[in-house]
Amino acid sequence: MIRLYNARILKKEFEIIEGEIWVDGSEITFVGSDEEAQLVKTNKKKVWSQEIDCEKNLLLPGFKNAHTHSPMTFLRSYADDQPLSKWLNEQVFPMEAKLGEEDMYHLTKLAIMEYLTSGITAAFDMYLLTRPRIQAASDCGFRMVICGSVNDFTGSAKQLEEEFISIGRPKEHADSLISYQLGFHAEYTTKRQLLEQIADMAQRHRAPVYMHLSETRDEVAQCEARYHMSPVQFLDKIGMFDYGGGGFHCVHVDEADMDILAERRIHVITNPASNLKLASGIAPIEKMQKKGINIAIGTDGAASNNCLDMFREMYLTTALQKILEQNAAALSADKVLRMAVTNGAYAMGLTDCDCLEAGKKADLVLIDLKRPNMQPEHNLIKNLVYSGSKENVKLTMVNGRILYRDGAFFIGTEAEEIYDRANEIICRLTNT
Amino acid sequence: MIRLYNARILKKEFEIIEGEIWVDGSEITFVGSDEEAQLVKTNKKKVWSQEIDCEKNLLLPGFKNAHTHSPMTFLRSYADDQPLSKWLNEQVFPMEAKLGEEDMYHLTKLAIMEYLTSGITAAFDMYLLTRPRIQAASDCGFRMVICGSVNDFTGSAKQLEEEFISIGRPKEHADSLISYQLGFHAEYTTKRQLLEQIADMAQRHRAPVYMHLSETRDEVAQCEARYHMSPVQFLDKIGMFDYGGGGFHCVHVDEADMDILAERRIHVITNPASNLKLASGIAPIEKMQKKGINIAIGTDGAASNNCLDMFREMYLTTALQKILEQNAAALSADKVLRMAVTNGAYAMGLTDCDCLEAGKKADLVLIDLKRPNMQPEHNLIKNLVYSGSKENVKLTMVNGRILYRDGAFFIGTEAEEIYDRANEIICRLTNT
Repeated sequence: MIRLYNARILKKEFEIIEGEIWVDGSEITFVGSDEEAQLVKTNKKKVWSQEIDCEKNLLLPGFKNAHTHSPMTFLRSYADDQPLSKWLNEQVFPMEAKLGEEDMYHLTKLAIMEYLTSGITAAFDMYLLTRPRIQAASDCGFRMVICGSVNDFTGSAKQLEEEFISIGRPKEHADSLISYQLGFHAEYTTKRQLLEQIADMAQRHRAPVYMHLSETRDEVAQCEARYHMSPVQFLDKIGMFDYGGGGFHCVHVDEADMDILAERRIHVITNPASNLKLASGIAPIEKMQKKGINIAIGTDGAASNNCLDMFREMYLTTALQKILEQNAAALSADKVLRMAVTNGAYAMGLTDCDCLEAGKKADLVLIDLKRPNMQPEHNLIKNLVYSGSKENVKLTMVNGRILYRDGAFFIGTEAEEIYDRANEIICRLTNT
Repeated sequence: MIRLYNARILKKEFEIIEGEIWVDGSEITFVGSDEEAQLVKTNKKKVWSQEIDCEKNLLLPGFKNAHTHSPMTFLRSYADDQPLSKWLNEQVFPMEAKLGEEDMYHLTKLAIMEYLTSGITAAFDMYLLTRPRIQAASDCGFRMVICGSVNDFTGSAKQLEEEFISIGRPKEHADSLISYQLGFHAEYTTKRQLLEQIADMAQRHRAPVYMHLSETRDEVAQCEARYHMSPVQFLDKIGMFDYGGGGFHCVHVDEADMDILAERRIHVITNPASNLKLASGIAPIEKMQKKGINIAIGTDGAASNNCLDMFREMYLTTALQKILEQNAAALSADKVLRMAVTNGAYAMGLTDCDCLEAGKKADLVLIDLKRPNMQPEHNLIKNLVYSGSKENVKLTMVNGRILYRDGAFFIGTEAEEIYDRANEIICRLTNT
């Protein structure tokens, strides 16, 4: 059993207490004050495998990266400064076509390392092949929810359903690090027949479905030309949202779209850095949040962001709303932190990773407050959202295991080896 | 003499070479390849006080924080989520009125620590009292250009001129860490008579003048109501720009304003994070850059940002232009890096801190490339601008002295002591 003591702890209702957390196997078994801990210890002797003095630093539930494409680390700084369609068709797709299964394994590991440096303990991952990503996450001890990515060019309805059944949805208190949600790439890359097959699958399994949704103005215009409806309206009409699900991006949604998303309890996963960099726009997060839509946050892939950093995303999530709404009071810091730690868990189906409580999974991050950007300590939550950076991540624990601490990785592979692999891959791909 | 070897080095023309840098006192005495270094060493024996293996990491000129209010660290996370006028009048000003000279000294040190964690080697600092900031910068060994901040409420033309004369402008190869530029707070806080006195002073000393300029829409509207001209046009008309200078923010400038700024060679210092958070807007940086205006980057104060982080500012400087111009190709990474390291030096008058060359000041930063966010190494400059973070700052040297290395500060005071002071100040101020 691991004991993390002398900590400040963000509780479920966003109250911060001083105390300790105990971890047994993959689970949290105790969260409470020093006095409460003393009382329990008196009644029952505890044997600790490890005791960590948190030095009054802050324990949070891990951040949930609710939309990403992990293997795309190989395209970091490869195709910048280009509009989305050109970026995707002329740069990303041709490079991806050359990517092998083993490449994806190593590149996913590089992404996982970066997640850990940013306090991210789970990723909702959409990409081409499933197996290498599952292998990488399992080997590292990282939590990954695979999102189906079928479209007209890759995969099939049959394959989607097989993977979904064999891997399974995230379940409460499931031991497995890996789970699966139904998903497809996007309306604009998927013909109606295939979409209807997926909707039918959702109905049969009573399962939510996830997809890129209304990311660009063009995409919405194309859908309107095709079906005389927005992507949200069209997908709702064919029954895609009958058992919930989620939309990645949702930049160009109108009032009617938002009402459907709210009514159907569709999660919206915002990716502000990627939307800026590809000039896609600013999603109306404040408006959607006020309509009661559950908002989560994702980094998107390294090709479009270019880093995998929840601190950047949190800052942008609130700061861009202030510009969009022309109101500096828009979307306060505590709401954004909740999106990053709690709402992300709900969006991904990880209902046992949403907060630090006994019985929940031990997915947590220790924030170093003894850094200039976290001082003075007038408001720790605002400090985190408005000033936080990767330099503040002291320890990241996933499923009860410390995978990152004081700059070092404990994921079964040396960091240098993964860097070498990534460099070898991008050199090989650009030279062929 | 200090030898930094086995490094990658960003040269003046943004070419990256492998080699080493020698530092003697406050100056760089050699920058070159291993072979060139060997040749010089053979001719003349060198005695090193310190040899640092850079392990193939990247040496850059230090970032220049070209607009900040250092002592405002005490208001970090104090007055967030409020519009500028309310934020300034109801939160910032009343708290500042309670601030003592010794408070400003400690709070400036906290800011300097944060600059160092972000690879910032010089700050262009505007605030109330000059003396405590000079003392803090001197005691830390940090480079600071004090910007005059006179307005209707604090200071006077006489005091501005006295400080300007006694401290002096930055000079090439001057030994002093501290220098001064003429400046006033802003047109909207300064009556015409005082502005004309400052313009007259600029003429007599043939000196540039710096000020907050067209930060908000309101400010521009008020000036137009007052003088039937924009702030840029009005200040130009009264001769403020005859010997150059710079404008902080410049969010709401029109074509005519930009033409004046270009013609008068006025530096524009952009503060994208602050402009977002206060909902002020997005400055037309791409347009100004195309007009040949020298653009530098600042963090603004911790009360409005809330962190002092050049990586955040660099990312935002380019990413926001992509949204503003609706063009993902707007403002490429290399242009932004140049703003942060070179243009900032020009804007502040630090012409001997603009690049890594023999004879220049030894103000530099070592970037740790062996981190996931810097891998693969397809394009180091894009990696820096789009993915860089404070976690990548391995060493910061100012004026030939290492002030920050591997997370530790060498500024003559313990970090904990400064944190304690900052917390004591904010507690005292909020309770009185």
